[in-house]
This record gives sequence, structure tokens and C-alpha cells, in this order.
Amino acid sequence: MRGLRRGVSRREFLRAAGVAGALGVSGGLLGARVARGQGGGHGGIRGEASGGHGGNRVVGDVDLSRFDPSKFLREFYWGDERKEGGRTVREYELVAEPVEIEVAPGVMYPAWAYNGQVPGPTLRAREGDRLRVAFKNGDTHPHTIHFHGFHPANMDGVFELVGPGQEFVYEFEAGPFGCHLYHCHTMPLKKHIEKGLYGAFIVDPREGRPEADEMVMVMNGFDTDFDGENEVYGVNTVAFHYQRHPVKIKRGELVRIYVVNALEFDLVNSFHIHANFFDYYPTGTRLEPSEFTDTKMFAQGERGIMEFRYRFPGRFMFHAHVSEFAELGWMGLFEVEG
Amino acid sequence: MRGLRRGVSRREFLRAAGVAGALGVSGGLLGARVARGQGGGHGGIRGEASGGHGGNRVVGDVDLSRFDPSKFLREFYWGDERKEGGRTVREYELVAEPVEIEVAPGVMYPAWAYNGQVPGPTLRAREGDRLRVAFKNGDTHPHTIHFHGFHPANMDGVFELVGPGQEFVYEFEAGPFGCHLYHCHTMPLKKHIEKGLYGAFIVDPREGRPEADEMVMVMNGFDTDFDGENEVYGVNTVAFHYQRHPVKIKRGELVRIYVVNALEFDLVNSFHIHANFFDYYPTGTRLEPSEFTDTKMFAQGERGIMEFRYRFPGRFMFHAHVSEFAELGWMGLFEVEG
Amino acid sequence: MRGLRRGVSRREFLRAAGVAGALGVSGGLLGARVARGQGGGHGGIRGEASGGHGGNRVVGDVDLSRFDPSKFLREFYWGDERKEGGRTVREYELVAEPVEIEVAPGVMYPAWAYNGQVPGPTLRAREGDRLRVAFKNGDTHPHTIHFHGFHPANMDGVFELVGPGQEFVYEFEAGPFGCHLYHCHTMPLKKHIEKGLYGAFIVDPREGRPEADEMVMVMNGFDTDFDGENEVYGVNTVAFHYQRHPVKIKRGELVRIYVVNALEFDLVNSFHIHANFFDYYPTGTRLEPSEFTDTKMFAQGERGIMEFRYRFPGRFMFHAHVSEFAELGWMGLFEVEG
Repeated sequence: MRGLRRGVSRREFLRAAGVAGALGVSGGLLGARVARGQGGGHGGIRGEASGGHGGNRVVGDVDLSRFDPSKFLREFYWGDERKEGGRTVREYELVAEPVEIEVAPGVMYPAWAYNGQVPGPTLRAREGDRLRVAFKNGDTHPHTIHFHGFHPANMDGVFELVGPGQEFVYEFEAGPFGCHLYHCHTMPLKKHIEKGLYGAFIVDPREGRPEADEMVMVMNGFDTDFDGENEVYGVNTVAFHYQRHPVKIKRGELVRIYVVNALEFDLVNSFHIHANFFDYYPTGTRLEPSEFTDTKMFAQGERGIMEFRYRFPGRFMFHAHVSEFAELGWMGLFEVEG
Repeated sequence: MRGLRRGVSRREFLRAAGVAGALGVSGGLLGARVARGQGGGHGGIRGEASGGHGGNRVVGDVDLSRFDPSKFLREFYWGDERKEGGRTVREYELVAEPVEIEVAPGVMYPAWAYNGQVPGPTLRAREGDRLRVAFKNGDTHPHTIHFHGFHPANMDGVFELVGPGQEFVYEFEAGPFGCHLYHCHTMPLKKHIEKGLYGAFIVDPREGRPEADEMVMVMNGFDTDFDGENEVYGVNTVAFHYQRHPVKIKRGELVRIYVVNALEFDLVNSFHIHANFFDYYPTGTRLEPSEFTDTKMFAQGERGIMEFRYRFPGRFMFHAHVSEFAELGWMGLFEVEG
Repeated sequence: MRGLRRGVSRREFLRAAGVAGALGVSGGLLGARVARGQGGGHGGIRGEASGGHGGNRVVGDVDLSRFDPSKFLREFYWGDERKEGGRTVREYELVAEPVEIEVAPGVMYPAWAYNGQVPGPTLRAREGDRLRVAFKNGDTHPHTIHFHGFHPANMDGVFELVGPGQEFVYEFEAGPFGCHLYHCHTMPLKKHIEKGLYGAFIVDPREGRPEADEMVMVMNGFDTDFDGENEVYGVNTVAFHYQRHPVKIKRGELVRIYVVNALEFDLVNSFHIHANFFDYYPTGTRLEPSEFTDTKMFAQGERGIMEFRYRFPGRFMFHAHVSEFAELGWMGLFEVEG
């Protein structure tokens, strides 16, 4: 494993991110070391002289063969589908396990993950489907799966801890339709979430939604030096990934993003798109949007659906409108083609 | 007075809360001392080894004969009602006074309170009623009552301070209908609110609302070591109270919660219910809900109405989806019967 | 230049603000020094004994000949209007430059500003107008103008930095209608915004809005001792300005406020009006309000339109319902006449 580093402080990461310039593209720590000397006199965050305003230097990348946010973006886990007495049943398998993930080039984080990835797989179903989620705990700590959605008390993933090596099958009917999430609910809660045990959970309305280019963006962050603050921010884990690898979309085509805020420590997060506005559906539980804006704030556990079409071609940023989070990795690009 | 302690630090409280395990039920400091040795090796918040993941240990309780959040939950102060020229007049009496309150078992806090309790009584009226609130200041500091709602400038509880021993009658017409609050507006404002001088103020629409099991939850917190941060969080003051004493509701029955965020210091608070979703009415000023969700964020002074029905029996958590607040006391249980 | 001071700490400012009393009117540092001895024994923020609860002492003011928030409040920059092929074209000129501004009486701040003022001029246009914004960088750092609104990728003010002495013309069609903002998007983003490079950008619907007394309030703050926290808060820059100079409005007349949150560092801001409620239009992009309330929270970059009428004459406060921001300057008065 290359570039293994633990305990990267917020200060070090900021210094590294400082090279990013106007575009804010960071090659992470390794890249930063190479690029620092080339930076202009300007920039610097929190008074630290570091990079320049300008360039678009991308140096280094994470090991995409282990987890590629560009693939994750449009991957939906519908489970094994079958019929039982005329009803659709979906069976999923989730395993909790410890895994080292690369949250920025060369910056490793000792995560707890569902199926070896953070975020966990995006579970998807249709309203009214019967869901069976076979959960196995492959870790040395007790864990659970708590779903946001309707279900009986004994399927809530709160009171019955699943010990190391144990299994449990969560079974319930999918609903209400919307954009939800699942996460471990073992105490201390903050720890079990922040370590990576969360994922998106999408329930489609019975009648479906209009056809669109659909993607999932789970806003998250990582406390890489274990000081109770996040040092690295992003969507789908890897800082600046969608700047190094812009999200390609087609001009005029409807884009639908399922946005979930899984950030810990910070009280709010936000999502801003450039040069455009989106229809926003809070929690995705209604078919009519509540707002038309370009900037939306999210509490911990809050989520919703954004829909938009780009009318102009080219590259457009999307990022937190909390400037600090943007500078620390929560920044990406749409590349509008056609 | 048993277990009197002042100046409990966040660290101490966290350590105590750490025993809570998956359910997060804490017996507070006294209980914690007893229970600590029994805890598993796991848990711990902010790196402090303390309790276990698991159990559901409830050790100790606050003195409920002085203030019982379970009673407060469904108590509405309609005032003395009379007719004057065909119009409904309601007269209320509020006294500001210093009082020691127990915010967690054994953790005392030197509050300033309306009628000796924090939150103050839930004032309730119908839109258009004439309200007369006789306010007496029984404290050694000047205080006021500032109502969120319509009223003339001289009834705003801002410019005319009510000195120690003095009285003032606030008189105005109740409106608009909704879920509001009242609080002291003496400067320094943060201090006068944080010390406990606040309560819910509900104005019913003329036509009323559909029948429901109605309750009030004022989200608050306490700075028990006076460091400008909250150490204890909850609804209706007592940390983990509704875990020790679950809120009993009936399966299928409409529940209506008037939620008020009176938290100081922290920029936002939030409310999450398990395994279910609620219709949300911001500020309660409209009869149509704006959202259907399971997680709602609140700014300081923000409030609204939540309506829901549980379809399954059993115990379901409700808590802040800010994990840290939940772990420090802002966590409770609905017990759905039938 | 009188009373020049740099590096005023939050502590010093708090101490100064502490004299404000119930009204919270502060004369700033200079005034504070004069007034402190007269204060009552009470008050004090964060445990510092300072002023009294009560009075309404206004001592000193900023130099209003340089920037007067009372004038700025109702000033809209429509640009030079002309017709080109039947279409309305508007031409604006903006210059970025360093300037010393007075954010509280005697408290100077070394800002970067558009046209020498913070906030920059309120740009205004009608949906569908062709806008040409000639931007000149008169500073020694590279800057840009990034508009919230529709525009092509090369007009986004992100990738093409405008160097010292250089010029650039942003050209695009105004839309969508709403209450937006513009700001510098040079990295480090937080710095370039916090230093003062932002302003409101209003796009009227084609059919216009109902006639009203219109004003702009840009919520902002200043890090006067460069510690990465704001020491001074307000709307339209000057702490407590609208307390010293209340905003005069007419009883019963429709008031429309374009509110923009340009605050950095703090995750949220909020706006509360006393004794009244407002219709709220998020981002101003719809003609129907989404909410009727008296307290609204804003994320960084969030904005909207508030509409209300006062039914009673007299003085009514408006301020952040984050008590701390209110005590540090984000507090003003409406004076309702008639």
C-alpha cells in the first residue's frame, strides 16, 4: 500500500489543500509536496502561506481499483429480486468490517464499512417491496443497521446489537418513498457513524419518477487525526475526486441527485451548484419540489433530491457553500457535454 | 437536597453518559459511578473508556416531586378565562425567580425560571383571545417577557425592564395562530435565555386543529460548568428523562408535538423520530404541512408542529440527529401501546 | 482618520458591547470607554462585568460620509440601460480594491471591496435583460466576480482569474428571477469572501412584484483580529447601525427585504423580527411564499425575500436569533410611523 499515512492533522491537510488555487484541485498531501514550491505567493488558509491562486495542478490520485467514486456514483444495489405470493421480495447482504480506505491521495483512514466501502452500497427498492437485509458483523465491535423509513420496533437496529461474528436479518416493507439513509446505531453513536457505517437508501414511488441521469452523493468527512474534528471533506468519501474526474452529464438532460448528509462533528453541511438552479425535494417524500435554488443546507441525517438540467456546455463546479469544507475537499465538477 | 453538585464539566458528564450503551440510557453522574465498573470495555466518547455498548441500565432519577417532565409534557396553561363584552379574555400569572433545578440525576443547576420551572408553563390561547399576562419579578435581576407573536411596541418586553420586586401586565390579542415561544429579553440576552427564562406559547386557530394526543417538547440545554458550552441536553430539561419514563402513545392515534428550540450556544438543534415520519408545520402558522420527513433541523428560536401516527407497537427512539446532543441527554422513547 | 484601531479582539468588543443594556445599543469601543463608568452593576457577557441592563446610550458613530448603511439600504444599481435590437441591455462597472472600512465606531477593518464599499453595490435587473458587468481589478491580488444565477461556463468567475490591473467583462442574460448574490471566487475562497468581496444581485420577475418599500440587508461579519472568528456582526456592515439610525417604515405599508447571508466562519445566521411575522420566499424564485414566520435561519450563501406590514406604530427590533451575534452588532430597529 503506497503512501500510507495516519494521523494527518487538519493543519497539514489545509496546507496541502492550499495549493489548489482558484479551481481548488488538490493532489492531496503527496501532490502538495511536489507542487508547493511552484505555487505563487498567494493563497494560504488561516494565514498559512502555501500555494498559488491559479493553476489546476492535479498530482496523484487514490487507488481507484479499491474504490472508485465515479463508479459508485451511479451504482444502485437493488438486491436479489423474487416474487413471493405475487409480491416483490428483495434480498440484500451487508457485512460490517474494518477496512483501510484512502480518503485523499496517500491519506489512509481506518474505517468501519458495510461491504468494505464507505459509503456502503446504495440500497434501492420500490415502495411496498418486501426487503430482507441479511446483516453479518465481521468486525470485533458490535454493530447494527438502523434504517430511516417505516418498520416495526424489532427491526429498528437499535436495541438488538449484533455481536462480532453474529448475523441478523432485517425484514420490513419499503416505505415511504424518498431519499433515505441507513447507518449503525450502536453507541457511542457519533463514533459508529463517523467511522463509515452509513449509506444511502432509496425508495422509489410506485409510479416511478421521470427518466433521468441518476446519481448518489453522500456528503461525508473524516477525522484523520482523531481530534474530534473533520480534516477531510467530500461527497462519496474521496476529497476533490470529482474535480480530478468530473461528472459527465449531457446538456439539456434531466439530472437527479440523491443527496444524503452523513457528516459528523459539523452541525451543518451544504450543497451549491454553479451557474444553475435545482428543484429540491426535501427527503424526496413528495413529487412536487418545495424550492428552486442553487444552495441548500443540510442537518446531520438530512437528505433530499435535487433535479436540474444544464443549458450551457462546459465545466461547472459544485461544492459546499461552507467555504472551509470546499477548501478541504468538498468540491467537484460537472462536465456538460453536447 | 440530595446529591447537590455544581460545576459539573462536559468531560465529567460525557464520562457519565458513556455508560449508556446502545440505548443511551444514563443514570447521570451518581448512577454512572455505580455502574461504571460493570460496563463492557467498549463505548466511550471522545476517546474516554467508560461504559459498554449494550445494556439498558437506569440508575437513579431526578426528584420528580419538584418537576416531572412527564406531567409537563401534556400540561397547558389556558389562564383564567372570562368574557368581556362578548370577547374571551385570558389572565395568566408569571413570576420570575431564581430556583435550583435538577437537570440530570444529582446534577443541580442554578436557574432563573418562570413560576419556578424550566421550561416555564406552556401558555395557550385561541387566536383573537385577549391575553393579560401579569408578570412579577421575584428575582434580584431585571427581567421581562418577550412574546413571539403580534403585539404593540409597548408590549414587546424589550425596552421596559421590570426591576426586582416590580410588576407589569402584558396585554395583547393572541395571534397569529401557531407554535411560538416567550422568553426574557433583558441583555445580555444569551444569559437570560440560557438560565431558563423561556417557555412555549401556543395559539390555536379559531377553527381548532383535528383531535390529537398533544404534547410540548422544548429542546434545551444547560451550561453546568459555566464555560459557555452546554454540558446537558434534552427536551423539557431533564437529560434522558423520556428514556427512563417513555412517552406512552396509542397505536394509530394522531400525535401532535409542539416543538420549540430554546437551546443557546449551539447554532442548531434537530429532532429525529425512529421508524416513522411526521408531517411538519413550520411555526405552526399554516394548516397544510410543508414537509414529510423524520429529521428536522431548528435554529435558535425556531419552532413548529410535528404530527404522526405509529402503525407498529413497541418502543421507538426520538432524539437529536446531532449525535453529540443525543449522547448528552437529548434522547427519549415513545412506547406505542395497542 | 479618527480612532483608528486594528486588531480589536472579540473579548474587547464584547466588553464594549456589554454596555448596551436591554436595547443593546452600543456606541462601540470609544463610546464604551466613556459610558462604562455609568453602567449599572449588571450585564456582562461571558462573565465580564461591564455595562447595565438598561439604558439606550448611543455614544459615537462611524464616519457616515464614507459609507452610510441607511443610504445603502434602499440603493439599487440598475446599470446604464440601453436597447440593442429591441432588447434591454444593462452595463455595470465594478472595481475591486483594498479599502479601510469602519465596522463599528472607531473599529477599522482592512477590506477588499467592490467599488470601495462593503457590501458591494446591489446589482439589479429584470429577468431576460442582457447584462454586461465590466470588472476591473484595482487590487494587488487576483480576483473575480462569481454570480449566483444562470450563465455560461466562461462567465462563471471561477477559472479565469483577473489579475492586478486587468479587466474582464462578464456578459449573460439575467435569470432566474430571485434574490441572489455575487462574490469573488478566487481561492482561498473563505478569505476572499470574508474580506468583503460580495454584494446582493436582484433579478426582478418580468411581471414585477407588488409595490413595496424595498430594502437590502446583507448579513455579514468581520474578523477584526484575524483569528478566524468574527468579532463584529451586522447587516450592511456597521454594527448596531440600524439601532442608532432606525429604519423608518410606514404603518400598514408593505415592506420587502432582500436578505442575503454573506457571513463566513459561522455555519448559520438568522433573522428575527419583533412583534410581527413575515412571508418568506426562499431564494425569491417563486411568487408564492413558503413560510409565515418571525425567525429564519440562513446557511452561508443562502438568501430570500421577506415581506411584512406593521400594524402598530413604534419601535421594533430585528436581529439574529443567535443571541451572541445580536449582542455583537447584528441588531437593529424598525421605527413604524403613522
